Amino acid sequence: MSSCEFESLEKCLESHLPEAELTEVKHILFGKETKKLDLPSCALEAASERDFELKGYRFEAVQEQLRQPRRIRVGLIQHRIVLPTDAPILDQINAMHTRVGEIVEVAAMCGVNVVCFQETWTMPFAFCTREKEPWTEFAESAEEGNTTRFCQELAKKYNMVVVSPILEREELHGTLWNTAVVISNSGNVLGKSRKTHIPRIGDFNESTYYMEGNTGHTVFQTQFGKIAVNICYGRHHPLNWFMYSMNGAEIIFNPSATVGALSEPMWPIEARNAAIANHCFTCAINRVGTEHFKSEFTSGDGKKAHHDFGHFYGSSYVAAPDGSRTPGLSRTRDGLLVVEMDLNLNRQISDKWSFKMTGRYAEYAEELTKAVRHDFKPNIMKE
Amino acid sequence: MSSCEFESLEKCLESHLPEAELTEVKHILFGKETKKLDLPSCALEAASERDFELKGYRFEAVQEQLRQPRRIRVGLIQHRIVLPTDAPILDQINAMHTRVGEIVEVAAMCGVNVVCFQETWTMPFAFCTREKEPWTEFAESAEEGNTTRFCQELAKKYNMVVVSPILEREELHGTLWNTAVVISNSGNVLGKSRKTHIPRIGDFNESTYYMEGNTGHTVFQTQFGKIAVNICYGRHHPLNWFMYSMNGAEIIFNPSATVGALSEPMWPIEARNAAIANHCFTCAINRVGTEHFKSEFTSGDGKKAHHDFGHFYGSSYVAAPDGSRTPGLSRTRDGLLVVEMDLNLNRQISDKWSFKMTGRYAEYAEELTKAVRHDFKPNIMKE
Repeated sequence: MSSCEFESLEKCLESHLPEAELTEVKHILFGKETKKLDLPSCALEAASERDFELKGYRFEAVQEQLRQPRRIRVGLIQHRIVLPTDAPILDQINAMHTRVGEIVEVAAMCGVNVVCFQETWTMPFAFCTREKEPWTEFAESAEEGNTTRFCQELAKKYNMVVVSPILEREELHGTLWNTAVVISNSGNVLGKSRKTHIPRIGDFNESTYYMEGNTGHTVFQTQFGKIAVNICYGRHHPLNWFMYSMNGAEIIFNPSATVGALSEPMWPIEARNAAIANHCFTCAINRVGTEHFKSEFTSGDGKKAHHDFGHFYGSSYVAAPDGSRTPGLSRTRDGLLVVEMDLNLNRQISDKWSFKMTGRYAEYAEELTKAVRHDFKPNIMKE
Repeated sequence: MSSCEFESLEKCLESHLPEAELTEVKHILFGKETKKLDLPSCALEAASERDFELKGYRFEAVQEQLRQPRRIRVGLIQHRIVLPTDAPILDQINAMHTRVGEIVEVAAMCGVNVVCFQETWTMPFAFCTREKEPWTEFAESAEEGNTTRFCQELAKKYNMVVVSPILEREELHGTLWNTAVVISNSGNVLGKSRKTHIPRIGDFNESTYYMEGNTGHTVFQTQFGKIAVNICYGRHHPLNWFMYSMNGAEIIFNPSATVGALSEPMWPIEARNAAIANHCFTCAINRVGTEHFKSEFTSGDGKKAHHDFGHFYGSSYVAAPDGSRTPGLSRTRDGLLVVEMDLNLNRQISDKWSFKMTGRYAEYAEELTKAVRHDFKPNIMKE
């Protein structure tokens, strides 16, 4: 079995483990069980016709006396590219709009309030090629680009907040960014969040294409809760998640594009750790499939030149502040994950575990301020 | 099957999954396979006679041109209490010394260079009772207590660094602390590290007994590498791990005492996330067994009074900076986990993934300094 044929951890465990042991294993791996969400049959039928996986789960919270439940539904969309990477650019973008549009329609049937797409969702993940052309042509204005207009239509039509991570072109300064555009359910652009940390790794030093973001740790107040977007490589940086949370984020999306042998064992760890540590929900989204490029390229690893970067393993999931998580979407198929959550759970867990309250952040602010100085003397005891 | 009978996740998967699928599952759950370490037969026999689990694994690194490998072996010891909690205190302490002493002897046979015991290893985890007496009598001087003297003997005898987490009594100020004493392989006390974050949870607000530590994020330069100790609840705080790493820690130990339904799903996540994020090794240690107390107590959860706090689930493990980890020790038995690691791996992974280099810590120092002010205005965008 090759890694890109292995459909999902959850399915494998369910097919082989005896019931009693499966319960223990699931508890250790996933925490408190997330109940399945009843989804309308029209949505299930549409998903089947349109050939994507549709799964639904819900996280519950205790009923409080003074606050009403704040139940909302998020949708995570993972997908492969639609046309070959050497098709005309506008055709590639339009085909992706059509594909994602038909998945969002199903999200609407499922009552989704906030939908988030994968990183640079309108294009192949071409940064591994290190060619500027034609890939920089996929960059668009965050405020006025075709893709933003397309998402504004979706947002208005379905009364849905849309998080649309694109390659952004800032025409005025001649700068590209890796940016999530956040569109309110009114259809207005609420703002944008630029990727904070950029991988500098042999075959994908993405700073070839764009720079570290300058939008800080902005949180967006939507009708359905306060959300933030930590793009891809930012998931490896606990401080990044933390600072979104310090600014009030209740849900942090992590739209990503990541492959293969090295990052997959980290995938179930990082977003989930962030949900636990920050008393919030996190949503990890990864694309699927293998993308072939016309020109061969090397990957800075001593291996021969090749035409693809590897298998994007999907596995999108949502993690809750109580340490539980949903199963992942497939490692191989397009999919929509619909998750209902009562945002009251965040404060309930915070009140119970008190990680924030016991955080001693003032001490850390002082220590970190010292630690970043060039003449910092680390606190090391010797004999 | 009750949760305290389920021996281990790894054994369960190995007994039920077909070979090809087991390989995929292990890759996703544990990352790159950690090879088994050949341990001397005298050690295996002694472990069997003394009725504890003995497991060995190794993490490898690439051979560099300019640096020699820095291969060292750590030992993690998990155990249950030996005598009932109402036995005379000195008898309880002595029995624990004897038990741990015979495990350390086996660690020495296995070539362990640095050994770490579980949190407050000389006593039952009695903080759930909220009784001061007789439990505060277990507190000892970090520098001159019986337990430190016992550990100094072990250190000298076996040429081994000993990390000994105890309940510390600072006689001069009348203060108790939750403290790890670090003893050099010369037998000298190298220093101590006090628990940074204290749980404030219904049935175990441990600040009833001791306060937040005042030793900062000290790192200890030993002959076998730079080590630090993040005690128990500190594992929920990513900033805590991070700051030990910023002070140069190559291995961070996390001696813990934790039970049951709530924390177990977080257990495989937090120490491992810290190893990944900070390009270092982390060692998570938890005690085993269920400890019965004479007086009944409640747990602030609406349930009836009871005589035990729950099942300590062991499962001690070591995580590496490349996202891999060892299998865990048993959930139910005393055990010694021997792990060989080449500390060169830390810098190799740092050079590859560059999480530290791309960390933008100066920006975080500024943002955090603002965020901890009482009049902080979070960065929230509204429509």
